[in-house]
Amino acid sequence: MESPEQQLALLSRGVVDIIPEADLLSKLRLGRPLRVKFGADPSAPDLHLGHVVVLRKLRQFQDLGHQVIFLIGDFTARIGDPTGRSESRRPLSPAEVAFNAKTYQDQVFKILNPQRTEVRFNSEWMEEMRAAEFVTLCSHYTVARMLERDDFATRYRQRQPIGIHEFLYPLIQAYDSVALRADVEVGGTDQRFNLLVGREIQKAFGQDPQVVLTLPLLEGTDGIQKMSKSLGNAIGVTEPPDQIFGKVMSISDELMLRYYELLTEEDVGAIRARIEAGELHPMEAKKELAARLVGMFWGETASLEAKRRFERQFQLREIPKDIPSFSWPDDRSEQLPVWRVLSLVGLASSNSEARRLVSQGAVKIDGEKLTTSDVLLRRGQGELVIQVGPRRWARLRGAEKVVIVPGRCGGASI
Amino acid sequence: MESPEQQLALLSRGVVDIIPEADLLSKLRLGRPLRVKFGADPSAPDLHLGHVVVLRKLRQFQDLGHQVIFLIGDFTARIGDPTGRSESRRPLSPAEVAFNAKTYQDQVFKILNPQRTEVRFNSEWMEEMRAAEFVTLCSHYTVARMLERDDFATRYRQRQPIGIHEFLYPLIQAYDSVALRADVEVGGTDQRFNLLVGREIQKAFGQDPQVVLTLPLLEGTDGIQKMSKSLGNAIGVTEPPDQIFGKVMSISDELMLRYYELLTEEDVGAIRARIEAGELHPMEAKKELAARLVGMFWGETASLEAKRRFERQFQLREIPKDIPSFSWPDDRSEQLPVWRVLSLVGLASSNSEARRLVSQGAVKIDGEKLTTSDVLLRRGQGELVIQVGPRRWARLRGAEKVVIVPGRCGGASI
Repeated sequence: MESPEQQLALLSRGVVDIIPEADLLSKLRLGRPLRVKFGADPSAPDLHLGHVVVLRKLRQFQDLGHQVIFLIGDFTARIGDPTGRSESRRPLSPAEVAFNAKTYQDQVFKILNPQRTEVRFNSEWMEEMRAAEFVTLCSHYTVARMLERDDFATRYRQRQPIGIHEFLYPLIQAYDSVALRADVEVGGTDQRFNLLVGREIQKAFGQDPQVVLTLPLLEGTDGIQKMSKSLGNAIGVTEPPDQIFGKVMSISDELMLRYYELLTEEDVGAIRARIEAGELHPMEAKKELAARLVGMFWGETASLEAKRRFERQFQLREIPKDIPSFSWPDDRSEQLPVWRVLSLVGLASSNSEARRLVSQGAVKIDGEKLTTSDVLLRRGQGELVIQVGPRRWARLRGAEKVVIVPGRCGGASI
Repeated sequence: MESPEQQLALLSRGVVDIIPEADLLSKLRLGRPLRVKFGADPSAPDLHLGHVVVLRKLRQFQDLGHQVIFLIGDFTARIGDPTGRSESRRPLSPAEVAFNAKTYQDQVFKILNPQRTEVRFNSEWMEEMRAAEFVTLCSHYTVARMLERDDFATRYRQRQPIGIHEFLYPLIQAYDSVALRADVEVGGTDQRFNLLVGREIQKAFGQDPQVVLTLPLLEGTDGIQKMSKSLGNAIGVTEPPDQIFGKVMSISDELMLRYYELLTEEDVGAIRARIEAGELHPMEAKKELAARLVGMFWGETASLEAKRRFERQFQLREIPKDIPSFSWPDDRSEQLPVWRVLSLVGLASSNSEARRLVSQGAVKIDGEKLTTSDVLLRRGQGELVIQVGPRRWARLRGAEKVVIVPGRCGGASI
């Protein structure tokens, strides 16, 4: 098992803030599984990659032996915004809450380890709370400090109404930490204020305050705004594999690196270096990322299939209709060098012209430019689209491209 | 029974605001007893004249056939200020609350009619209130509007902490109006904000909002600050008669008129006119006020006794030690004109000099200057102190002053 110092180093990766860091180390030194709280709002149960950033951190805690408390804020969801002013805070019925909570769990367990996850609902203690206890809870925080929260400060300055009940929600969220005796609470940087209120309220109730660990907010597919379902720039974890794959493929190269950083364990610096050195095509890196993410939510097989379908689909977008179509020649070898195939299907007038075209970079298979003529094609279940220059095309059925092992396939004979 | 318009005229007397006045008239026209709420804080159960201003208005409602709801805010008193920052809001035990509530009632029924008073405690509904209902209650008011309350505005501006629970108290007070279905709430002008919150909350709960009726704050005996026990300028309704009498006698003439205005039904303009015309000595007017107030809290007999003791006490303060002392002459009439007594005890050299001294205003009995020589003294149980000019004194035991009935005593013979 990792030492507290090793754990701290691992847990610090990709984190924006640990408040206070020294306390996290002390807590790790306690030698018992820490209670790591994560609060979820059941009124918006569709998880997207933005949530995954936090969930992966929670998983990391679990892999180090700690306990995650997945708290579903059903109490507040059932109240919603009683003023009815906010459509996004419509009160949910108990049935809706139950359904959404189930939906949530189905999703989080794509990432979290169920064996080390305690699912709780804050109605458990909030339903029982009497008005007098509520008043006492409210006495532990001041109006001025609450108005320091960015969104409240802005609305107050702009004279937009803030209902007094809105001051209660951060206090309820904070009290959840008391009820759960949380050691750590993890959330996005946008939750920083609320998580810190939790520390204050725990102190007021005589508890050792939780360590607050904040994670960056992931940008949506537009690369600009925070990922959000309502902004239409989200990639949801329950979206079909092809959709996830396609959305990832649509992001900018820069954003791809950001996603690598926040959603995988990869060394982003190394990937960037390989791309800059021309050793890795950005599209390949992107496919790898897309495949990883689909794999995370849908498993390995689904990931491979999605990748294949994407490549096919991607290529189909570029292929003119009515291009000549060939089948793998029955009487020939099981595999052929690509230059041989080019001349066989008439895309090159000779083997030597075919070799020259490949070395000039004029040949693409399934949309991917060949950089060496040492590429083998072989009999298979797939279908390859071969393109020479901008206008010459051929479709080859019953074939597939072979992963190239340099120095092994060069001399294959026809 | 008075018409709604007549009632409105009566109820408007001495009031600072009726919000809105038209609604009070509409409610009076309903033809049923109105529910008139008054909220009391059991953490400070000692009533003083400042409260009497409001209680007299409530009594006026009762005399017009309406129902007073005397609400004891025991719920909030039992919570107090949970931060412990405010010594004045120390939480009270249930026993303390019960004791104070009893104290309160003993006092208010010196003024209110118990037959038309409903005593209620807000713990009745607040104890039962769940957190969810509390959140809904809070949703009906905004932070910005709450911060408009003068004391909150000042503290916020001066960066003094305001606990969030302090925002809850006006909402609880307002909800009491909902629970009680109050038609009218009466309070001092310092309660105006809170009483108006009651209107908003009643509307939010689908009720016809209460009419708010505010009364002036009575100045304390210093004539400057609002009457308050903690400022030491209060006259409490449970203070002993002599103490009340003495405190009233100590106020300025101007403040006396203010007290007449706010604590009696007298025509203050007429009293002022008589004083200015020299028809009424301010000290006499003050004694009358003091007697009225003692009578209000302790009854007629106590009032008369207090007045007598005061006059005696007042006089004693001015009397030199070792003045000549006489007893009522055993062999003489049961009553004597004052001029006759003056010559008998040697304060005048002759009856005619005695008459002249009285007519010059040089003679005082028990500190009160005689304005006519038609004053009789008679045998009695008391003791009179007679003063002529600044330096001549005599004490007359076994005697008392007779109320003068002009034209009846003039010719009494010795």
